Amino acid sequence: MAYELYYWDGIQGRGEFVRLALEEAQADYVDVVRGSGPGVGTNAMFELLESDQVPHLPFAPPFLKDGDLMVSHVANILFYLGPRLGLAPKDENLRYVANGLQLTITDFVAEVHDTHHPIATSLYYEDQKDEAKARSAAFIRERIPKFLGYFERVLQQNSGGPRHIVTDTLTYVDLSLFQVIEGLHYAFPKAMKGYATRYPGLAVLHEAVAKRPNIAAYLQSKRRLAFNENGIFRHYPEVDLTT
Amino acid sequence: MAYELYYWDGIQGRGEFVRLALEEAQADYVDVVRGSGPGVGTNAMFELLESDQVPHLPFAPPFLKDGDLMVSHVANILFYLGPRLGLAPKDENLRYVANGLQLTITDFVAEVHDTHHPIATSLYYEDQKDEAKARSAAFIRERIPKFLGYFERVLQQNSGGPRHIVTDTLTYVDLSLFQVIEGLHYAFPKAMKGYATRYPGLAVLHEAVAKRPNIAAYLQSKRRLAFNENGIFRHYPEVDLTT
Repeated sequence: MAYELYYWDGIQGRGEFVRLALEEAQADYVDVVRGSGPGVGTNAMFELLESDQVPHLPFAPPFLKDGDLMVSHVANILFYLGPRLGLAPKDENLRYVANGLQLTITDFVAEVHDTHHPIATSLYYEDQKDEAKARSAAFIRERIPKFLGYFERVLQQNSGGPRHIVTDTLTYVDLSLFQVIEGLHYAFPKAMKGYATRYPGLAVLHEAVAKRPNIAAYLQSKRRLAFNENGIFRHYPEVDLTT
Repeated sequence: MAYELYYWDGIQGRGEFVRLALEEAQADYVDVVRGSGPGVGTNAMFELLESDQVPHLPFAPPFLKDGDLMVSHVANILFYLGPRLGLAPKDENLRYVANGLQLTITDFVAEVHDTHHPIATSLYYEDQKDEAKARSAAFIRERIPKFLGYFERVLQQNSGGPRHIVTDTLTYVDLSLFQVIEGLHYAFPKAMKGYATRYPGLAVLHEAVAKRPNIAAYLQSKRRLAFNENGIFRHYPEVDLTT
């Protein structure tokens, strides 16, 4: 049975980290909300999320349905899918290492979101623009170097690096790091200028993932949505800074 | 061999979610940074975090060392410890359900942190007080009801609830929910007033956990630090609101 991915239509957002893993593995999956017809579409997602019967409902998309099981949160979905898609380390202990790295990516992505929504998710960006400028400046000066510096160091200290961050084979964490680099380039082109010199390991990993045949084909396909200002990574030139 | 927990001294913080699980299970563990003598203390943590040899270093505390394995991030540590401490669901699939709930707690806790640090972690609260007020107001009006309402609903729709959020036995998620309720009461006493009427299931769970003998003994012990204004849950009366 096909995996069912539930996520908002129209944006890459957090769902994209899951899509990249499914696409790399050529897994049989349905992107439920983006489909049309009976049992798919946005309504199908809301019907599920609003059920007063189904136990253990997710808090928010993305979530994955595999038969009756619903798995929520990107890192959890990838932890679940990893071994099934051949994208987890073989060593059991290293799966916790991969999950720890993925959760660091989760935190980083949440901070990216808060650069344009520092006060409230319920307000428009335009209503918290000054605060977004302040938060983005701190993000660019302090948080990007802290997070990318950390990933670079782990890549360099991994004996199978820098093309891979855990062992010497591809894992879903590599795919997610690729997506983070893509997103940062879209959102903060000034801040990311010359990043390959500062983070050579990440640049190698990013290029290696982009060249993988299944990923390259996916990126060219209609299934890959463009970045836009409804997603997590948003390009607001007024908050971007040269460092 | 004893588990080694690495976390900042002087605060409950994120480490507390791990401590509660270790204490409930009466596990053999060392709270490394809080110890004194050779091989323990803050230096021991920094030596590890700053190593240019050790592979797959954590981004930040808390992390758990079990022999050579280092597991980072609260949810990941609990996912790892859960089955070992008898605090995970027996059913393999439900472990992903538990992890999804724990990651929702992680997100909620990150939002609690940002109520006092909406602009930058590197600035003092005093330097972002106006923004903290605005973010706290949105947090109290929108996010507390959204998150607690969600957990309440899952408790009510769990056939083994409301004392437990997954199945009908204690899991680490129940312990973490207890801690969240404790922390919210400390940080936002006005906002939490009458919470038991609005969230009766959570109130039942909270009381049931508090009464567990190992938890009750721990809460009375010197090992349980008091909440304070260096932690995640901080009481700044000026940002608290009656709803």
